[in-house]
Amino acid sequence: MKHWALMGVATLALASCTTVADQPSDMMMKAPVEAMILEAARSGTQGYDIVEGLTTEIGQRLAGTEAEARARDWTVAKFKEIGLQNVRVEPFTISGWERGVETASIVSPFPQEMLLTALGGSVATPAGGVTAEIAYFPTFEDLESAPMDSLDGKIVFISGRMDKAPNGAGYGPANRKRRSGASESAKRGAAAVVIRSVGTDSHRFPHTGQMRYADGLPKIPIAALSAPDADQLERILERGQAVTMALNIQPRAVGDRPSGNVIGEIVGTERPEEIVLISGHLDSWDLGTGAIDDGAGIGISAGAAQILIEAGLKPKRTIRVVAYGAEEVGLLGGFAYRDLHKDDLINHVLATESDFGSKPAYEVQLGVTEGAEVIESVADMLGLPMSDQPTNGGPDIGPIAALGVPTMRFQQDGTDYFDLHHTPDDTLDKIDPDDIAENVAAFALMAWLAANADTDFRADDPQAGN
Amino acid sequence: MKHWALMGVATLALASCTTVADQPSDMMMKAPVEAMILEAARSGTQGYDIVEGLTTEIGQRLAGTEAEARARDWTVAKFKEIGLQNVRVEPFTISGWERGVETASIVSPFPQEMLLTALGGSVATPAGGVTAEIAYFPTFEDLESAPMDSLDGKIVFISGRMDKAPNGAGYGPANRKRRSGASESAKRGAAAVVIRSVGTDSHRFPHTGQMRYADGLPKIPIAALSAPDADQLERILERGQAVTMALNIQPRAVGDRPSGNVIGEIVGTERPEEIVLISGHLDSWDLGTGAIDDGAGIGISAGAAQILIEAGLKPKRTIRVVAYGAEEVGLLGGFAYRDLHKDDLINHVLATESDFGSKPAYEVQLGVTEGAEVIESVADMLGLPMSDQPTNGGPDIGPIAALGVPTMRFQQDGTDYFDLHHTPDDTLDKIDPDDIAENVAAFALMAWLAANADTDFRADDPQAGN
Repeated sequence: MKHWALMGVATLALASCTTVADQPSDMMMKAPVEAMILEAARSGTQGYDIVEGLTTEIGQRLAGTEAEARARDWTVAKFKEIGLQNVRVEPFTISGWERGVETASIVSPFPQEMLLTALGGSVATPAGGVTAEIAYFPTFEDLESAPMDSLDGKIVFISGRMDKAPNGAGYGPANRKRRSGASESAKRGAAAVVIRSVGTDSHRFPHTGQMRYADGLPKIPIAALSAPDADQLERILERGQAVTMALNIQPRAVGDRPSGNVIGEIVGTERPEEIVLISGHLDSWDLGTGAIDDGAGIGISAGAAQILIEAGLKPKRTIRVVAYGAEEVGLLGGFAYRDLHKDDLINHVLATESDFGSKPAYEVQLGVTEGAEVIESVADMLGLPMSDQPTNGGPDIGPIAALGVPTMRFQQDGTDYFDLHHTPDDTLDKIDPDDIAENVAAFALMAWLAANADTDFRADDPQAGN
Repeated sequence: MKHWALMGVATLALASCTTVADQPSDMMMKAPVEAMILEAARSGTQGYDIVEGLTTEIGQRLAGTEAEARARDWTVAKFKEIGLQNVRVEPFTISGWERGVETASIVSPFPQEMLLTALGGSVATPAGGVTAEIAYFPTFEDLESAPMDSLDGKIVFISGRMDKAPNGAGYGPANRKRRSGASESAKRGAAAVVIRSVGTDSHRFPHTGQMRYADGLPKIPIAALSAPDADQLERILERGQAVTMALNIQPRAVGDRPSGNVIGEIVGTERPEEIVLISGHLDSWDLGTGAIDDGAGIGISAGAAQILIEAGLKPKRTIRVVAYGAEEVGLLGGFAYRDLHKDDLINHVLATESDFGSKPAYEVQLGVTEGAEVIESVADMLGLPMSDQPTNGGPDIGPIAALGVPTMRFQQDGTDYFDLHHTPDDTLDKIDPDDIAENVAAFALMAWLAANADTDFRADDPQAGN
């Protein structure tokens, strides 16, 4: 941090009319290899081409479905095509869930249809749906303070808006209603729940996402209204009359289904057993084609490896690319990786994931106890400041980070990420190829320097590393 | 025209750092009544409140449906509430059409679902749908030049992008495929048609809209893909393999249904038989709540009348507000009005409609042979230039304009109108209340001055007037 604060001041003094962030990469003499990596990535389309292929040739790839299985096959073929070694699938089994019919309407006082979608993991309404009066809670916290048994047979509507922020800080608070809205309502006697979508747009796309049932409580159906539909329902409620909704969602649990993580490597020349892991997740929700969530992460991590392979660069440590399966439904690929590799985590030198869309990073976060200077030098070359926020490396890295694997993260600009997140509108047209290229540059440079660093990122006792 | 060109030059010379359009209203001494009208409208929410009420309490109001009937009742009550006189419905009958199930998927080579919607008036596919190879035409013109009998049993895909323009100039050319794509394909043997939506957005909303069948040709189903789905289908086709689509749309003709125009008036004090007509259309497509198309027009025209009533102003001529029914399905309210009032059109002094969204006007168009100076003075006071484009006053005014009724039009800025037009996303949140207020100001001022003008807008022989 100190290093960077000083550098920022010096840069400002030199050039007050340009941005600080632009300066370091321009002013710094880069080693020829590093400069070549950046140039190749920024002028190339390796990452974008991978996202384009995955989203076009597979489309949606919900965890556990036949589409996710095709996506694994596609990724195995792609990893081999770009020259990765040891390409394989590490399979695991999940409990499948599939969407069904989903309709909703206001029955009275102002009859009209509403657009919504079931949350992942939700049970169905009774066949034909449930019709009941709406019990309105402006926020999840309002629901939490409602008396027990006060919602008997009602359809709970939880509103609450999510704030935009580059780091997505609004997501956690807004997401409480999605995660826990069903059980908090069920314990008060409700029949079903609709929430205002967890998102930052004002388009008529509901945002899905995984929900959870608490143990020991009735399981009731839960769905998300698009933001304009939630606005509409609030305006209807403001008229002061009792509002009756008819809700019919028919998702279903489909039993055990296959999923898996796809892995490919550039095997290290000197310390092949030591792993620098770069990743994204392969599954998507079923509504869109998963371009920003997380086709982008697959393109960025595999595209970075492709840059190094095409340049003929041979890292000392092994660079491992992982395309995790079943992230959306509970980080299941991340947990499966942790369990399968538990005896080998000591050899994981550094790990990161891109799972925050396609926009370039605006800062770099550290989850290491040693070797920060290597990552700081990467940030320098990219013109990025270091963050004062720690990281666990990304959603699927979290499980191994918790066991001591060192991590870092390029904090991508997620200001608009939740406009599209988990909606039908998460499609390729939302991605700027230049953005992907810049992320590929960052991943390629980081992987290269981490794989070749003489210093390590692991604490002496890896169990205390993060 | 000359008047305005000269004024623009003078204004530019005076103040080169501000916009021309801002100057006239600031520089001009307005009569107290006119200034009061503008101030009341710009500071008020009359128009917005009407759009808010209509879209919230009715929602979608497809022509011929029970929802459109409720919208008529709502409008009758609203017109009475704001103090209009002679409030009434002029009923007419239309051939009803309703949407049904609509699904599409790519069967091969890359199985995935696509989002589309049936075009208004389309017949259904056979029960269970049609599965066939795609025949791709980048533009409608490409289809027109395809050989006869060359599309036997295929699903035609017509792409082609619509250009953005403030006056919506891209709509006509882009709309040819929507209007005529089915029959042009049917005459070449096709089984069904999908088009890239006629729209300017890149969201996953298909745009519906009325289509037409040519006489003497088979009627085949036609639907519109959202822009991202059309992009996706183009990318899939670019892979060079035969592409098979499964298409199932089940809209149906439902026979005769009631529609109607809702009318209210401020009866003139001196020439009550002479009519200044301001209007919008009450029906919407069934996908959204018809906020910009055309709840806005209802709010703007009725809100303008409300401003005059609340100010206690008594026009010499009658100001008639018309909320046309069944516009979307073929200007049926406009034609019904023409037929019912055919013996009275001679008394229509001036007519206009707002049916281009909620954004303020950027110029004023003339469809009169006399009295242009009155409309030019309105433009002056609003700070708007005159257009060199003629007008027929708006879609529902077209039928009476063709018989000689003088017209004018505030050309609203429609640059983004076709982002939302005919989609589920046409909802109230897209409207800025200040925009509606500015349009209300324009309509109120124009109606007031036209109703009180000593000059007339009609040619000596009204049949030659437009």
